[in-house]
Amino acid sequence: MQQQVSVITLGVADLGRSRRFYVEGFGWAPVFENAEIAFYQMNGLVLGTWLTPRLEDDMRRAGLARPGAFALAHNVGSQDQVQPLIDRLSRAGGQVLRPGDAPPHGGFRGYVADPDDHAWEIAWNPAWPISAEGHVTFEA
Amino acid sequence: MQQQVSVITLGVADLGRSRRFYVEGFGWAPVFENAEIAFYQMNGLVLGTWLTPRLEDDMRRAGLARPGAFALAHNVGSQDQVQPLIDRLSRAGGQVLRPGDAPPHGGFRGYVADPDDHAWEIAWNPAWPISAEGHVTFEA
Repeated sequence: MQQQVSVITLGVADLGRSRRFYVEGFGWAPVFENAEIAFYQMNGLVLGTWLTPRLEDDMRRAGLARPGAFALAHNVGSQDQVQPLIDRLSRAGGQVLRPGDAPPHGGFRGYVADPDDHAWEIAWNPAWPISAEGHVTFEA
Repeated sequence: MQQQVSVITLGVADLGRSRRFYVEGFGWAPVFENAEIAFYQMNGLVLGTWLTPRLEDDMRRAGLARPGAFALAHNVGSQDQVQPLIDRLSRAGGQVLRPGDAPPHGGFRGYVADPDDHAWEIAWNPAWPISAEGHVTFEA
């Protein structure tokens, strides 16, 4: 069995507002967009932003709540990239949850929520290599 | 800017209960475990399952709610793998949200929630290639 995540789908209320965070904040480009969903090709998986009522219909579960008990992380290559990216995400409609600081296990990180309350950790983790293709490897 | 997700962290209440779903259900092996977190090396990113109070402390946000407005997907290579995996995840502590059926856009999929209410879509999507390394590519 492949240890593999194919898609992360985030429920959103307003595609334009979400798009601004991901395109202007992160600097990413969608690979597909229509009136209810946008997809971004990521590092070996796909990120989708889908209108929450459509996601609820598809998973047959109403009443999805926010903020959910999860976080996504985007790791960067050096400590000095963390806070500028948090600031840019904030200007693109994000809410800073925690400005960048040093966690007990080393490195540097902060948290920002996207316009739909989905939390992103922006981190420099010198222990975990990132390949040129963006593939991230756990190292103890 | 790399279009890259480094980590997906799921808040969990009981690491043993969560471990059973991921290890016995999906058949995955953790790359690291301690008393508060387990990490799984995935396809170019890391999946973490972390005690929810620790995640709340780290992101400086209390009151994380369930079920969150998101879904993860694990795509498989053929339609006939979908329902058996949903059944195995159910036996490992998951809750079936939607048994496998055919969505309007083609393929075959169902949804199962992990023991902490995090939704997984188990899908066969013939349009999206999966490499031998588990890397998934969007195709329209």
